[in-house]
Amino acid sequence: MTPRPRAVVVVTGSELVRGERTDRNGPFLAAEALSHGLEPARITIVGDTPAELEAAFREGLGADACLVSGGLGPTHDDRTVELLARAAGVELVVDEALEQEIESISRAVAERLQRPYADFAPGVTKQATRPVTALSIGLAGTAPGLVFRAPTGCVVVVLPGPPSELRRLWPNALVSEPMRELLARTRPPGRHVLRLFGVSESAVARALEEAGGDGGGVEATICAREFEIHVDLLVEPGAEERGDALEAELVERLGPWLFAHDERRVEELVLSLAAACGLSLATAESCTGGMVAARLTGVPGSSASFVGGVVAYADDVKRSELGVPEELLAEHGAVSAEVAAAMADGVRRRLGTDLAVAVTGVAGPDGGTAEKPVGRVHLHASGPDGSLARMLDLPGEREQIRVRAAVTSLHLLRALLLGSRDEDT
Amino acid sequence: MTPRPRAVVVVTGSELVRGERTDRNGPFLAAEALSHGLEPARITIVGDTPAELEAAFREGLGADACLVSGGLGPTHDDRTVELLARAAGVELVVDEALEQEIESISRAVAERLQRPYADFAPGVTKQATRPVTALSIGLAGTAPGLVFRAPTGCVVVVLPGPPSELRRLWPNALVSEPMRELLARTRPPGRHVLRLFGVSESAVARALEEAGGDGGGVEATICAREFEIHVDLLVEPGAEERGDALEAELVERLGPWLFAHDERRVEELVLSLAAACGLSLATAESCTGGMVAARLTGVPGSSASFVGGVVAYADDVKRSELGVPEELLAEHGAVSAEVAAAMADGVRRRLGTDLAVAVTGVAGPDGGTAEKPVGRVHLHASGPDGSLARMLDLPGEREQIRVRAAVTSLHLLRALLLGSRDEDT
Repeated sequence: MTPRPRAVVVVTGSELVRGERTDRNGPFLAAEALSHGLEPARITIVGDTPAELEAAFREGLGADACLVSGGLGPTHDDRTVELLARAAGVELVVDEALEQEIESISRAVAERLQRPYADFAPGVTKQATRPVTALSIGLAGTAPGLVFRAPTGCVVVVLPGPPSELRRLWPNALVSEPMRELLARTRPPGRHVLRLFGVSESAVARALEEAGGDGGGVEATICAREFEIHVDLLVEPGAEERGDALEAELVERLGPWLFAHDERRVEELVLSLAAACGLSLATAESCTGGMVAARLTGVPGSSASFVGGVVAYADDVKRSELGVPEELLAEHGAVSAEVAAAMADGVRRRLGTDLAVAVTGVAGPDGGTAEKPVGRVHLHASGPDGSLARMLDLPGEREQIRVRAAVTSLHLLRALLLGSRDEDT
Repeated sequence: MTPRPRAVVVVTGSELVRGERTDRNGPFLAAEALSHGLEPARITIVGDTPAELEAAFREGLGADACLVSGGLGPTHDDRTVELLARAAGVELVVDEALEQEIESISRAVAERLQRPYADFAPGVTKQATRPVTALSIGLAGTAPGLVFRAPTGCVVVVLPGPPSELRRLWPNALVSEPMRELLARTRPPGRHVLRLFGVSESAVARALEEAGGDGGGVEATICAREFEIHVDLLVEPGAEERGDALEAELVERLGPWLFAHDERRVEELVLSLAAACGLSLATAESCTGGMVAARLTGVPGSSASFVGGVVAYADDVKRSELGVPEELLAEHGAVSAEVAAAMADGVRRRLGTDLAVAVTGVAGPDGGTAEKPVGRVHLHASGPDGSLARMLDLPGEREQIRVRAAVTSLHLLRALLLGSRDEDT
């Protein structure tokens, strides 16, 4: 097996290297590189100090592909193009066609802002300046994305910093001649995806071990995310049999906890199951305060099944909007299996839906007691063919507890939907 | 001004360098380093390939401080300690006290999992192995955090990968002898924070320019986040006057859009204003589907003012739960100023609160029309002393539109609260 060509991602931005903002471009470019058969060897995040930038670019130019994000603005401290050219030892030229393109945009902006174009002219020339061997792959605002092959042979892709703009120009980089030549040498790996819920990361690691582990052209990564365990098998061309065999072994060992073979999130699965069963859905939330509804409505087309929800944060609202009996609250307290059940049934009745899920718990940091500590959550999913209840004692801080309660409530809905569908068929 | 000691952060993890998961440790460690007077020069994310790891560590050891995250597990592919020692040219030893500590934990785990301790023994010895000059700063599970000074003089801090564990052990690193010695040479910078809403990033950049720009011991970063503009001024010891002057200039120019001098999020400001005014609060959401309520309830103690909310995704729910008149929906449609107002008044009435905010809009990707395109959002905040309404045409995709609508609705609430409070006083 020939090794994958090596790709280095260089992300520029002072606010990123100082941790004031979390980078989103590095992970995107790395995942893209991997899916096209390159090996993402490193993501380097660096500020706009010339020495640091140039050093990072020099390292990047030692790879087969160097994917750069940011530093393309019109001002003097946007130095990506200048320092890349210096690091690569290539000349800079002002691209006249590009300059005209950028000028016409800048003149429009100047007019809109009622400022003299002269203010913009230096920036226009600066942004139209490119390595002599580079070609523009399109503008983000007035900043051109660039692709060129460095004397080292490294294919350099320069993209704007704003994530949406970067993602918009990336496909143009992929079809550029230098990239096409590089990717002609690669064979994109196959990928098996296993999504698990309700099993520990270490149990999954043990199952992988017992299944013979990875290697032989198959690489496994296991990562825990929001209470789920995500297993990815990366399969080299030629190792498909081994990959399929390993996946089958894992499915056999982990079947009960497997909820997806693709990257769809649990809320998508819940919504497509509900739609498939022709069932409508509502939520009643206390400690998650709308997170479950927010995740469901994050899915395009969710209105086909999701009708609405009630955030019953105060007990009065649990009574008035969800019809939770006063006695129940008095006897068992708001954080109890009984109240969770009453909330679910209440929202179903009130919104007239087939299905509902309810969440009530102690998210902390305050409000915990010896009997009901911070992290105690009661979930209740109820539908036409029955209901499922669950009590959790979640570790972590307020936000973790809320997220995990929301994720678990969606998995509870999924389990209920699968149950009810099995009985239908 | 002597330059700040240089810090390099090295984050290890195959799932991170492949973009399967977004790193949270790099930004945390970089921000911490900066706040203690170090200059975060670079964040490097690498996988577990020995050659890539060792190269990254070698670069890190060239700095004054090298902060490393991850790769401390018991298995063979957790190579951080081994490769750091090799890169630094220091010997490894098995720390017997540490080994006993880890063994006792592992024996308990073995018992709980009903597996022979022999399975764990090699991992225990591996995790108790440290550079001869290193000292343990505490365990995360069975993984010790380590601090040592490399022959290069670089202070190396090794921390576990799980963010919560890393954050728990970090303070121990700060008070370790090698770190204390390094930090004795630093003078933590001052920091001015300006949080703005309703103004463009370029207008803020222009204001900074007109205010004389940064430099002279003051560094400014401007970044747009969720529709807000965050301005940070980093002030070198000795440049306080310049820093104060620049901040005053910016406040004068940007005052109308300034909403905070600290890092509190707008939902925190809304809740503390509501509490200060003794007003209760509810939400009525359509296209944001619970995001506004979820952000409000993310704040500890939010129950003091936030009572609850209704996610009225379907028009039936707008009618039945919020009392939006059928005629209004028929005449103006669900996405209209009239319906937004009716939703806000409806939820105030239903939940009996003093204040409410309502959001209705077209989040897309479908559902847009020529008259009401994707991104059209109507907001309405209503309270005892009046109400504020706003129409938005938001760019971007579904999630961006929803987030921006949620953030803007919180700012609308804040504006209403400031208005009503001004009238009270």
